[in-house]
Amino acid sequence: MTVRVGVIGTGIMGADHVNTLHRQVTGATVTMVADLDLDRALEVATGLPGARATDDGVALIGDPAVDAVVVASPDASHADLAVAAIKAGKPVMCEKPLAPTLAECVRVVRAEQEAVGAGGPGLVSVGFMRRFDPGYVELKAALEAGVCGTPLLVHCVSRGVSSGPGATSESSVTGSAIHELDVVPWLLGARVVEVGWHAPRSTGAVPGMQDPQLILLRTADGAMTTVEVFLNARYGYDIRCEVVGDRGTVALTNPARVVSDAAGRRASGYPADWRPRFADAYRLQLQAWVDAVAAGRPAPLASARDGLTASAVAGAVIASMRDGGRTVAVRPHP
Amino acid sequence: MTVRVGVIGTGIMGADHVNTLHRQVTGATVTMVADLDLDRALEVATGLPGARATDDGVALIGDPAVDAVVVASPDASHADLAVAAIKAGKPVMCEKPLAPTLAECVRVVRAEQEAVGAGGPGLVSVGFMRRFDPGYVELKAALEAGVCGTPLLVHCVSRGVSSGPGATSESSVTGSAIHELDVVPWLLGARVVEVGWHAPRSTGAVPGMQDPQLILLRTADGAMTTVEVFLNARYGYDIRCEVVGDRGTVALTNPARVVSDAAGRRASGYPADWRPRFADAYRLQLQAWVDAVAAGRPAPLASARDGLTASAVAGAVIASMRDGGRTVAVRPHP
Amino acid sequence: MTVRVGVIGTGIMGADHVNTLHRQVTGATVTMVADLDLDRALEVATGLPGARATDDGVALIGDPAVDAVVVASPDASHADLAVAAIKAGKPVMCEKPLAPTLAECVRVVRAEQEAVGAGGPGLVSVGFMRRFDPGYVELKAALEAGVCGTPLLVHCVSRGVSSGPGATSESSVTGSAIHELDVVPWLLGARVVEVGWHAPRSTGAVPGMQDPQLILLRTADGAMTTVEVFLNARYGYDIRCEVVGDRGTVALTNPARVVSDAAGRRASGYPADWRPRFADAYRLQLQAWVDAVAAGRPAPLASARDGLTASAVAGAVIASMRDGGRTVAVRPHP
Amino acid sequence: MTVRVGVIGTGIMGADHVNTLHRQVTGATVTMVADLDLDRALEVATGLPGARATDDGVALIGDPAVDAVVVASPDASHADLAVAAIKAGKPVMCEKPLAPTLAECVRVVRAEQEAVGAGGPGLVSVGFMRRFDPGYVELKAALEAGVCGTPLLVHCVSRGVSSGPGATSESSVTGSAIHELDVVPWLLGARVVEVGWHAPRSTGAVPGMQDPQLILLRTADGAMTTVEVFLNARYGYDIRCEVVGDRGTVALTNPARVVSDAAGRRASGYPADWRPRFADAYRLQLQAWVDAVAAGRPAPLASARDGLTASAVAGAVIASMRDGGRTVAVRPHP
Repeated sequence: MTVRVGVIGTGIMGADHVNTLHRQVTGATVTMVADLDLDRALEVATGLPGARATDDGVALIGDPAVDAVVVASPDASHADLAVAAIKAGKPVMCEKPLAPTLAECVRVVRAEQEAVGAGGPGLVSVGFMRRFDPGYVELKAALEAGVCGTPLLVHCVSRGVSSGPGATSESSVTGSAIHELDVVPWLLGARVVEVGWHAPRSTGAVPGMQDPQLILLRTADGAMTTVEVFLNARYGYDIRCEVVGDRGTVALTNPARVVSDAAGRRASGYPADWRPRFADAYRLQLQAWVDAVAAGRPAPLASARDGLTASAVAGAVIASMRDGGRTVAVRPHP
Repeated sequence: MTVRVGVIGTGIMGADHVNTLHRQVTGATVTMVADLDLDRALEVATGLPGARATDDGVALIGDPAVDAVVVASPDASHADLAVAAIKAGKPVMCEKPLAPTLAECVRVVRAEQEAVGAGGPGLVSVGFMRRFDPGYVELKAALEAGVCGTPLLVHCVSRGVSSGPGATSESSVTGSAIHELDVVPWLLGARVVEVGWHAPRSTGAVPGMQDPQLILLRTADGAMTTVEVFLNARYGYDIRCEVVGDRGTVALTNPARVVSDAAGRRASGYPADWRPRFADAYRLQLQAWVDAVAAGRPAPLASARDGLTASAVAGAVIASMRDGGRTVAVRPHP
Repeated sequence: MTVRVGVIGTGIMGADHVNTLHRQVTGATVTMVADLDLDRALEVATGLPGARATDDGVALIGDPAVDAVVVASPDASHADLAVAAIKAGKPVMCEKPLAPTLAECVRVVRAEQEAVGAGGPGLVSVGFMRRFDPGYVELKAALEAGVCGTPLLVHCVSRGVSSGPGATSESSVTGSAIHELDVVPWLLGARVVEVGWHAPRSTGAVPGMQDPQLILLRTADGAMTTVEVFLNARYGYDIRCEVVGDRGTVALTNPARVVSDAAGRRASGYPADWRPRFADAYRLQLQAWVDAVAAGRPAPLASARDGLTASAVAGAVIASMRDGGRTVAVRPHP
Repeated sequence: MTVRVGVIGTGIMGADHVNTLHRQVTGATVTMVADLDLDRALEVATGLPGARATDDGVALIGDPAVDAVVVASPDASHADLAVAAIKAGKPVMCEKPLAPTLAECVRVVRAEQEAVGAGGPGLVSVGFMRRFDPGYVELKAALEAGVCGTPLLVHCVSRGVSSGPGATSESSVTGSAIHELDVVPWLLGARVVEVGWHAPRSTGAVPGMQDPQLILLRTADGAMTTVEVFLNARYGYDIRCEVVGDRGTVALTNPARVVSDAAGRRASGYPADWRPRFADAYRLQLQAWVDAVAAGRPAPLASARDGLTASAVAGAVIASMRDGGRTVAVRPHP
């Protein structure tokens, strides 16, 4: 059975998802795309045999030609669209964050619980694609194989070339660090219980924006995590993660594929942004989602509750930011 | 348009291709599989909705439900099946080697020339998948960007854990080193004009088999290449390639994704064989082939002539092996 | 002129210094060794032509055959011996820490100021040997060359195989992390103004000891530093340092000299403790000290004030440790 | 006992040795320097308390203030000076090559045999300093510990930024590759029995000079070695060595001490020439030589016979060069 997917939002991320589904994922066909900018939607649809375009995301969700929905529209629309998909009984893969406010995340989780029952398999997945990155997957497997013993500390680094337009100290957390806020608990199998935010000397790249930031997490297992998030690091897009246990460590390697010697130096390159770095992760995540939808199985992606949890942790980090770096507890949501 | 693919041969390689086509390549559907061992073919077909099995490869080629053919049957059958596909006017992707003897390779190239004309786009592709490995692709791009200047020397290493059953000194060349015999000229844009074969001290792993072997190549641009092929290196599957130019070098990196510290050592792992190492290459090669077939474009894979050329070079290497390491010239085929 | 050196303390560190001075440092001769354990002193002296042994460190300082003194006796004796050397007008190189308490460090600094005047060249050097490690020296040179722009963040890791007998949470700071407390301000050219101490999940290796510890530093330039100190990391002795600036980063590499492929892995080794890792640093530090003494120049080592400063920072870290991780300010001493 | 050393030749290499002996080697004092350019000798002597200068190397050898001699004068003078030292009964450390012609090397070996008896400890050492490089020493230790099993293949790379004035195809062998011709047999414990020389496409950097060169060696254990010597590689001074055995490999790492991220790249630097790369090796070699001289023990450096042997292998390589790459046997000297 081919899964007929509708994609809402045809900006950079949405267009990438359309392209990945069309070119690299088996068992799926993109039958509909939606964007408030109808021209953009039409342009994207042009490359997809048989696909239609609309400026109405809710209409897309309800369309009988759509079996499952990808939401890559602006963050503010995520909750409404996810709830609409839940009500339509259709699986939905929502780009992170699940929603910009905690209240909206809760609304989505509750809507899903009402629809499928508290313990039932959910309809909502959240696009924390690092869970499908082959490096993180190997790292998790090594942890589970006991390579480093009991995890005690995690060191994460998340650097980019430059923050996009409109970046703020807060959006560093909700838009970038949120990946670490999801992936670290996933690696450790332990939720974040406490956070602290710290402001090193800041680059002057974006006036008014604190960059880099240093975030400390404590997970329920007692382990601590340092997260450096630095969006204007200039030199390249660079994601690092090392888990330190009581017998050793496991860490991601630098993923460069070639190295060159020239002009006095041995050098390898960095990608300019996250897309080359996580191209495999996006592909494998969508494939896993499509496979699960096709089989009627629960999707192995981050769930709505995972999305809520990451947003709750992000909220705690921002609370710490606004309160001089005070340690802030993160309570689980009911 | 979905390309309906028939796969001949359902051994390790053939089953892998079926799986890759079915699970990871878009725009294709495996409609038929063939194997002399019909039970094995049936078993493979079971996992493919709507696919049929046969023990007759030629029947598969002629079947109206098959648009294009993958040949992964024993080497001795390659030429006949490739010619049959040519005669049926169907694109065929043949696993390397194109054929075990030069005469048979020539027969395929001639059959193709007769079918499509000397300058026409060919029907036959050969599975030299390294041309699609992201590392080799980046390496070639770096060469073309002039990162290391004019290539003067290439150093290749091809090591495996253990040679399979029936391995011989000759099969090291025709089955393993042949990848380097194809990929080095592809990287340099220059054909091999001269070879020499050398026998270092041999591991005793396989009685009667010279392993490792050291092969020297000279390409038409004057550059020389050293190829170490060592199938019983025991420690892991390890492919290396460094191009040395007059301004610098470019080389593949070690592709390990995680590194661990434990028990006094910093270590990363090697794969046990070529499949994890070149999984992306196989996927991307088949996708490129399917896309070309669907579009009626010439496939960007190694051609029948490339397959003939690599086999001719392999033949020269074996001639050198049998003649005490004498330098042997490789003449282009008409 | 050959500098006649007396070494007080012939434990592991003192015996190493004697050996380094005797075997690897030019322009110096060890003329006297002292240890409360006279037999041990005698044994060490046996290997040194013309050297005498004593159980009285103060007598050694006063001996006319001693031009300059190395203090490697138990920490509690450092201040008295340093002051005695100052009063004798002899240069003294004291192992870190300068003294176990801040009051004693202050006493040494004041004694030196009285002896040489406030702005005069000091007699006391402190053995923060990392300032002479070729890696740290290159790192500092790269910072000064602007390779990474303005430093914003530093990440330090200090791991060992196992803490020695009597190790405590406090001694992790005063005995191990103190190297980072000295070397980071030296790298950045900015003193530590604020510290915070954090307790990740602890290995159970030493009951009652918090290990690893996570220390945050803020320097006067606004930069922040994370220091992981983990003495029972088991896998090896491993020192890391990365400086992150507004244009890039600079970091120490792993100093392994050989790498091997075996048994499925690519691996390099770690030293078992600090001595092989910093053998060059110890040698170069003593050579620089001897050269300065011979020339009557101020020694380019850490000064008494540097020793006091590092101890003051260590004291602040311990204050934070005892106060639940509260941020503690570090005030400069008059 | 302090060894009083006379150094003949105060060019780059000789001045380096003087400086190393004076500043970094214990138990030695440079009492005399000789150079045909007396002004240069005087200038070097100025920095050495109590040292004298002469333009007569033979007079230096005979001087009663000289216990042992370092020869770093032009190659053509090596044999005469070594023989003079032998006749004076003084230990001599001669820079490589022992002599530019095989006949002269033989003359030195015979002179030594006559002086000390065939089996006696020699007076002559040859400056193949790589035997003291900590990386090569660890590599040899790993081989002896069986890390890679029985050696089958060795891959060596010797690259420099640019060949000096007067460089020729022959001097690449006698001046540069000769280090590999000595160190490989030392590593394997097996002499070179056969060589072959090959000419890849050449850089045009030095008209008339073949560069790079590819040399194949076979040692008496049957192992083969590839040596790439490339003096105008431009990008940096880069020495590599990997030994491939029947259970794994051991190789030198890149010795860079820091790595930086900047401008889209992760990079480490190369030295501009051999001196920083082998500074430790030169120091440790001279220290080992001085220690042996002081103790009246045989020096653990390469012997006159080792120097003869390396020159004999170099001669065979040049014979192959002149004879179209023919395989040339290397016979042991009586």
